Amino acid sequence: MVSVRSNTASCLMALCSFPEEILQKSLGPEFIANRVGPGNAKLFYIEGRTAINLANEVFGYDGWSSEVLETVTDFIDVDDRGRVSLGIAARVRVTLKCGTYHEDWGYGSFENAKTKADAFEKARKESVTDGLKRALRLFGDVMGNCIYDKNYLRNIGNMAKPAARKKRKS
Amino acid sequence: MVSVRSNTASCLMALCSFPEEILQKSLGPEFIANRVGPGNAKLFYIEGRTAINLANEVFGYDGWSSEVLETVTDFIDVDDRGRVSLGIAARVRVTLKCGTYHEDWGYGSFENAKTKADAFEKARKESVTDGLKRALRLFGDVMGNCIYDKNYLRNIGNMAKPAARKKRKS
Amino acid sequence: MVSVRSNTASCLMALCSFPEEILQKSLGPEFIANRVGPGNAKLFYIEGRTAINLANEVFGYDGWSSEVLETVTDFIDVDDRGRVSLGIAARVRVTLKCGTYHEDWGYGSFENAKTKADAFEKARKESVTDGLKRALRLFGDVMGNCIYDKNYLRNIGNMAKPAARKKRKS
Amino acid sequence: MVSVRSNTASCLMALCSFPEEILQKSLGPEFIANRVGPGNAKLFYIEGRTAINLANEVFGYDGWSSEVLETVTDFIDVDDRGRVSLGIAARVRVTLKCGTYHEDWGYGSFENAKTKADAFEKARKESVTDGLKRALRLFGDVMGNCIYDKNYLRNIGNMAKPAARKKRKS
Amino acid sequence: MVSVRSNTASCLMALCSFPEEILQKSLGPEFIANRVGPGNAKLFYIEGRTAINLANEVFGYDGWSSEVLETVTDFIDVDDRGRVSLGIAARVRVTLKCGTYHEDWGYGSFENAKTKADAFEKARKESVTDGLKRALRLFGDVMGNCIYDKNYLRNIGNMAKPAARKKRKS
Amino acid sequence: MVSVRSNTASCLMALCSFPEEILQKSLGPEFIANRVGPGNAKLFYIEGRTAINLANEVFGYDGWSSEVLETVTDFIDVDDRGRVSLGIAARVRVTLKCGTYHEDWGYGSFENAKTKADAFEKARKESVTDGLKRALRLFGDVMGNCIYDKNYLRNIGNMAKPAARKKRKS
Amino acid sequence: MVSVRSNTASCLMALCSFPEEILQKSLGPEFIANRVGPGNAKLFYIEGRTAINLANEVFGYDGWSSEVLETVTDFIDVDDRGRVSLGIAARVRVTLKCGTYHEDWGYGSFENAKTKADAFEKARKESVTDGLKRALRLFGDVMGNCIYDKNYLRNIGNMAKPAARKKRKS
Amino acid sequence: MVSVRSNTASCLMALCSFPEEILQKSLGPEFIANRVGPGNAKLFYIEGRTAINLANEVFGYDGWSSEVLETVTDFIDVDDRGRVSLGIAARVRVTLKCGTYHEDWGYGSFENAKTKADAFEKARKESVTDGLKRALRLFGDVMGNCIYDKNYLRNIGNMAKPAARKKRKS
Amino acid sequence: MVSVRSNTASCLMALCSFPEEILQKSLGPEFIANRVGPGNAKLFYIEGRTAINLANEVFGYDGWSSEVLETVTDFIDVDDRGRVSLGIAARVRVTLKCGTYHEDWGYGSFENAKTKADAFEKARKESVTDGLKRALRLFGDVMGNCIYDKNYLRNIGNMAKPAARKKRKS
Amino acid sequence: MVSVRSNTASCLMALCSFPEEILQKSLGPEFIANRVGPGNAKLFYIEGRTAINLANEVFGYDGWSSEVLETVTDFIDVDDRGRVSLGIAARVRVTLKCGTYHEDWGYGSFENAKTKADAFEKARKESVTDGLKRALRLFGDVMGNCIYDKNYLRNIGNMAKPAARKKRKS
Amino acid sequence: MVSVRSNTASCLMALCSFPEEILQKSLGPEFIANRVGPGNAKLFYIEGRTAINLANEVFGYDGWSSEVLETVTDFIDVDDRGRVSLGIAARVRVTLKCGTYHEDWGYGSFENAKTKADAFEKARKESVTDGLKRALRLFGDVMGNCIYDKNYLRNIGNMAKPAARKKRKS
Repeated sequence: MVSVRSNTASCLMALCSFPEEILQKSLGPEFIANRVGPGNAKLFYIEGRTAINLANEVFGYDGWSSEVLETVTDFIDVDDRGRVSLGIAARVRVTLKCGTYHEDWGYGSFENAKTKADAFEKARKESVTDGLKRALRLFGDVMGNCIYDKNYLRNIGNMAKPAARKKRKS
Repeated sequence: MVSVRSNTASCLMALCSFPEEILQKSLGPEFIANRVGPGNAKLFYIEGRTAINLANEVFGYDGWSSEVLETVTDFIDVDDRGRVSLGIAARVRVTLKCGTYHEDWGYGSFENAKTKADAFEKARKESVTDGLKRALRLFGDVMGNCIYDKNYLRNIGNMAKPAARKKRKS
Repeated sequence: MVSVRSNTASCLMALCSFPEEILQKSLGPEFIANRVGPGNAKLFYIEGRTAINLANEVFGYDGWSSEVLETVTDFIDVDDRGRVSLGIAARVRVTLKCGTYHEDWGYGSFENAKTKADAFEKARKESVTDGLKRALRLFGDVMGNCIYDKNYLRNIGNMAKPAARKKRKS
Repeated sequence: MVSVRSNTASCLMALCSFPEEILQKSLGPEFIANRVGPGNAKLFYIEGRTAINLANEVFGYDGWSSEVLETVTDFIDVDDRGRVSLGIAARVRVTLKCGTYHEDWGYGSFENAKTKADAFEKARKESVTDGLKRALRLFGDVMGNCIYDKNYLRNIGNMAKPAARKKRKS
Repeated sequence: MVSVRSNTASCLMALCSFPEEILQKSLGPEFIANRVGPGNAKLFYIEGRTAINLANEVFGYDGWSSEVLETVTDFIDVDDRGRVSLGIAARVRVTLKCGTYHEDWGYGSFENAKTKADAFEKARKESVTDGLKRALRLFGDVMGNCIYDKNYLRNIGNMAKPAARKKRKS
Repeated sequence: MVSVRSNTASCLMALCSFPEEILQKSLGPEFIANRVGPGNAKLFYIEGRTAINLANEVFGYDGWSSEVLETVTDFIDVDDRGRVSLGIAARVRVTLKCGTYHEDWGYGSFENAKTKADAFEKARKESVTDGLKRALRLFGDVMGNCIYDKNYLRNIGNMAKPAARKKRKS
Repeated sequence: MVSVRSNTASCLMALCSFPEEILQKSLGPEFIANRVGPGNAKLFYIEGRTAINLANEVFGYDGWSSEVLETVTDFIDVDDRGRVSLGIAARVRVTLKCGTYHEDWGYGSFENAKTKADAFEKARKESVTDGLKRALRLFGDVMGNCIYDKNYLRNIGNMAKPAARKKRKS
Repeated sequence: MVSVRSNTASCLMALCSFPEEILQKSLGPEFIANRVGPGNAKLFYIEGRTAINLANEVFGYDGWSSEVLETVTDFIDVDDRGRVSLGIAARVRVTLKCGTYHEDWGYGSFENAKTKADAFEKARKESVTDGLKRALRLFGDVMGNCIYDKNYLRNIGNMAKPAARKKRKS
Repeated sequence: MVSVRSNTASCLMALCSFPEEILQKSLGPEFIANRVGPGNAKLFYIEGRTAINLANEVFGYDGWSSEVLETVTDFIDVDDRGRVSLGIAARVRVTLKCGTYHEDWGYGSFENAKTKADAFEKARKESVTDGLKRALRLFGDVMGNCIYDKNYLRNIGNMAKPAARKKRKS
Repeated sequence: MVSVRSNTASCLMALCSFPEEILQKSLGPEFIANRVGPGNAKLFYIEGRTAINLANEVFGYDGWSSEVLETVTDFIDVDDRGRVSLGIAARVRVTLKCGTYHEDWGYGSFENAKTKADAFEKARKESVTDGLKRALRLFGDVMGNCIYDKNYLRNIGNMAKPAARKKRKS
Repeated sequence: MVSVRSNTASCLMALCSFPEEILQKSLGPEFIANRVGPGNAKLFYIEGRTAINLANEVFGYDGWSSEVLETVTDFIDVDDRGRVSLGIAARVRVTLKCGTYHEDWGYGSFENAKTKADAFEKARKESVTDGLKRALRLFGDVMGNCIYDKNYLRNIGNMAKPAARKKRKS
């Protein structure tokens, strides 16, 4: 991109203009997915798609950037039948328009995949989406940090999803 | 390219001028392709060509750039008959005119190719197109994020494609 | 991000505007979690989620950044039954808007995990959250330094948690 | 090249001045070549020479640049009779005057060449031309993206080529 | 962080505004911890938590930064019973707002740990806290340099701790 | 070369001042050489000397630069009689005064040379000249792109060379 | 730290404002420690703590910085009984506010340590303090250079220490 | 060399002031040397000394620079009698005052030299002079490009050398 | 250190303000030490301490800087009895406030040391002091260059040391 | 050296002020040395000392700089009697005050030296002086290019040296 | 050193102010030392100490800088009796205040030294002093270039040294 230095009075530093109140809110039940985990327990999580939409709504479509700073294949094991197990870690950084950033490791893995291609593809992509979600949660409850609150999770399980969700207009 | 620093009052920072409303919309059925997947299930996806046209329409032809930051050949296996299987990952970044960017890993693979050339060519190109689509989807539903919404997919399967699609004029 | 140099009179250096009084305060009991440690002792700690919310409240949502500067896998041991033990260290830096920063090593480990994927994922993520908490505590008692004060811990064990916590509005 | 920084009021950032309407158009049949592929199928493609002329017409002769960022020899096999097979990948970037860029991998290969020189020369050059075409297609239908549209291909096969093609004058 | 160059008359170089008198003072007994060392001797030291609070009080919460410039694992020994002994050194730098800095090596070790994780975690963290304390002491007696004065130590052992400590308000 | 930054109003960015009409023209027969290829076919090509003169005429003697960015010796084979065969690839970039550039791989080879010196010298020099011609052709038909047009080649074979060629005066 | 460029008239280059007379003075006996060396000789030296206080008094608390530029473990020997001997060198630089700097190597060693941790910890820390003292002495007699003067040492042994030492106020 | 930035109105970008007419001219016979080649053929060439003088005359003594960017020893063979054969390639760049540049590979070799010193010295120097001549010829016919024109060579063989050559005065 | 750019009229380039007359003078006998060398000869030299004081007097305490650019351990030999001999070279640079600098190699060695620690410590420190003296002597006779003048040495041996030395006041 | 940016009107780019007429002249016989070569032939050359004086006279004592960019030891052979033969190449660049530069390889060698020291010393120094002369000759006949002109050499052998040489005054 | 950019009208580029006449002069006999060489010949040379004083007089004490850019140990041989022979080369650059510079290789060696320390110390130091003298001589006859003039040497042997030498005052 062409590098621009502007000295005009109308040029201001990029600002993070998101309303701080929103970031302090917890997410309504319509943002929370769940699946059955080990021991038949109900596990709550936020889907990658939902996290992306939340970031676009809160920060604005041109208000946040994301990048994969490092990718590590931690292990690749092939068993006697040719089944492949591997784990991949991705360090993801999210940067706001005003320069604030957070980073975290995301993880993707595949146990006993039939082909190496399946295993690598799933683990690589899963690691990035996971890292993205973990970096975003550092921006507050509404970006997913609430999911780590046990009280919140107890409540969310009992709440009904709203019929329709009104989108923020900026 | 010649580096330019302009101090004139008429010089402004590059702005992302796309209408935010468009990014919040989901895609109509004419943008969604499908194929038969394992277990005879209907799999919906966006073609590379469609994703490129969407980006050009929404961001403008000079409003977005793309690059391949890293390419990794994860594995190459040749079986007894000389059939080649390999998998290639490409990390793709999409950058808007205003500096916002997103990155993701795309994947390309070939099982049991007759020649190495076929396998490498297909996997390399597939990985870039796939990475491009995954990076674009981070810009919102209209850039492909909607494809990860199960409700959306249920609906799209029942919708008829419009007769003709009117293009956005900027 | 587009690099901007502004010469206008209204441009000021980024300042750390948090109220210094808050940083000198110790945390109330509602911020302190506990678990049973070796010898049935009660161990007090701050949850990662709480530390993140504290930082967002005190520094503001756009007032602090975090990054993982270095990740080291110290050891990976696999025993005869295939159980995996490993330890991972992450060096985390927290930077305030005004440029002040602190760093520390965080640690994550897993003893006798059933799969490598479980072990790596837990240890990687634990190390970042731990490092984040240790870097944040350097900003004072309210950011977690109080947890290292034995007198404080004795008191906190005897205090009742407040019914509701009022959030700071900036 | 001598680096120039101009502070005069008449200096503007380089702009991409191509008419956006052109980029949205599909190509007429006179731009499309075809050859017989496997199974006697008719395969449509754009010749390298045509793609270059299209770029020069649409972007202007001084409006676009191209470079080979990376070249990888994926494999070299020599059989018992000394016949050489090899595959080469080239990562090509196209950059417009206003800074917008796209990248893609192109591929070149040679099966059973009589000499190594023949094989290397053809594959190297083919990979660059192919990469150039793939990077250009990202700029829209008129730059070749239309060739990936099955409906378009069905129509183009039935159209007659125009007698003469009028060139754009800028 | 966004890099800012301000030319306005109100912009001044960052200054170290701490009152120099404070740095010349020795610490009162309430800042000094002690433990029983070899030969039943009473060993005086400053706790990491205390050193951090001292720095925040004297330099201000936004007045000092710390970083771990280098970490070296000097040795790892595992004996016949699997007990782990290791030593880790961390080079820590403390930088004041006005640019003044000091560095020193800190050390952390563990003799005969039951697990590698315990040993690495303790030694890594101990080395950073130790290095931080050693770098801070270079800023004068009140930052811990007094602890190296034998006369001071003789006196401090005989002094009673004050009932309450009044905090500096800036 | 001494680096100059000029702030005077008379300083303008370097411009590419060549007349665009010329670049769209095809070359007359006096620029095209031919030789007998395999199967007694007549092969048309542009000599290196001609391409250089064309660039100097069209872009001006100070209007274009060329460089060899990378040189790769793909193979060196010596047979039983000591005959040497080798192939060398050169990546050449041509840059215009206004910053526009194109790159391509050129190739040089020698089959069964009597001496290594002969083989290396011919292949190295041939690869640069070939790369130069391929990079230049990207600037349009008049720079050699026409040679890839089959219709053009059919016509050129039937045309008589003009008696004298009038040079462009700038 | 935020990088600041100030153009205001009140901005001056950082100056070294210490009074030159002080640097020319030799140290009084209260700054000199001694111990019994080989052959029962009395060895005079300056303690690390004293050198640090001297630097803070003479240059001011924000007037000097120190760093460890290089650390070399010259040798590690373990004898039959497991006793450890090692030597570590540290290159230390002291920089004044006005930019003047001096460097020297300091040394730390341990003969026949019971544990590696003891040996490494002592030698690393000793080497930095020693290097600091050697770099400081280059700033003149009052910073410790007088200790290398045999006449001075003869006198200092016969002088009584003053009852109290008055501190410099800046 | 001291780096200078001048903002005065009289500072202009360095310009290439050579008269373009000269570069289009071919060289007279007094600039062409010849020797007997294989098969008793007369081979025409330009001596290094002549090329240097041409460049100084056309571009001016301070108008062009030359450098050796890369030197490669392609092969060194020593036969049974100790005779040395080797080949060295030099990549030479010529840069004009206005920034225009051209590059090419030059070659030097020695077959059956009595000593290694003779072989290396001749080949190294020959490669630079050859590369210089090849880079210069890219600036047009008068800089040596004419020597590659077969018609020109036929004529030059029949022309008489002029009695004296008049030098250009700038 | 904070980097400062000052545009005010009172800011001048750092100047070397030492009086040139002093540098041309030779040193009086009170600056010259001597010891008995091989063959009972009297060897004259300047002590490190004296050289440092001379530099501080002539250039001013903030007028010169020194650094160790490179340290090389040339050899380490251990004989049968465990005696250690080693030699270390240090490249030292002295830089004046106005930017003038000189460099030289200094040397330190130890023959037949009882311990490695003794040998390394002495040789490292000796090499720096020696290098410092050699770099300083390049600034003229008064900085030690006179010691290389045989006439000067003959005279100095016969002169009496002055009773007291008056220091330069700046 | 302190880096200076001057914006004053009196600051001009460094210019090459040597009179161009001088550079076109050939050297008089008093600048040419000769020695007897193989076959009793008289070999003419310019001594290093003469070339240096010529450069100082023509360009001015502060008008040219020289540096050794690369030094390569091509071979070292030791025969049975311990005689040493070696060859060293030095790439030398000469840069004028106005930024113009030329480079060439110089060569130094020694056949059958008695000691390695003799061989290395002579070859290293000879290679630099030779490279200096070859780089200087690129500035024209008066800088030594005339020595490559056979006609010139024929004449110079017959000319008498002038009684005295008048130096240029600038 | 603090980097300073001054925009004031009184700031001028550093100039080389030495009087050019001095550089053209040859040295008087009082600057030339001699020793007996092989074959009882009288060898003339300039002592290192003299060269340094000459540079300080001609260029001024703050007018020239020197540095050791590269040091190479060419060979180390130890014979049966343990005698050490080695050769060390040092590339030295001399830079004047105005930016002009010259470089050359200096050499130091020791044949049959009793200890490695003696050999390394002498050779290292000799190589720097030798390189310094060779770089200085490139500045003209008065800086030592005259010593390479055979006529000059013949005369100097017959001249008497002046009784006293008057120093230049600047």
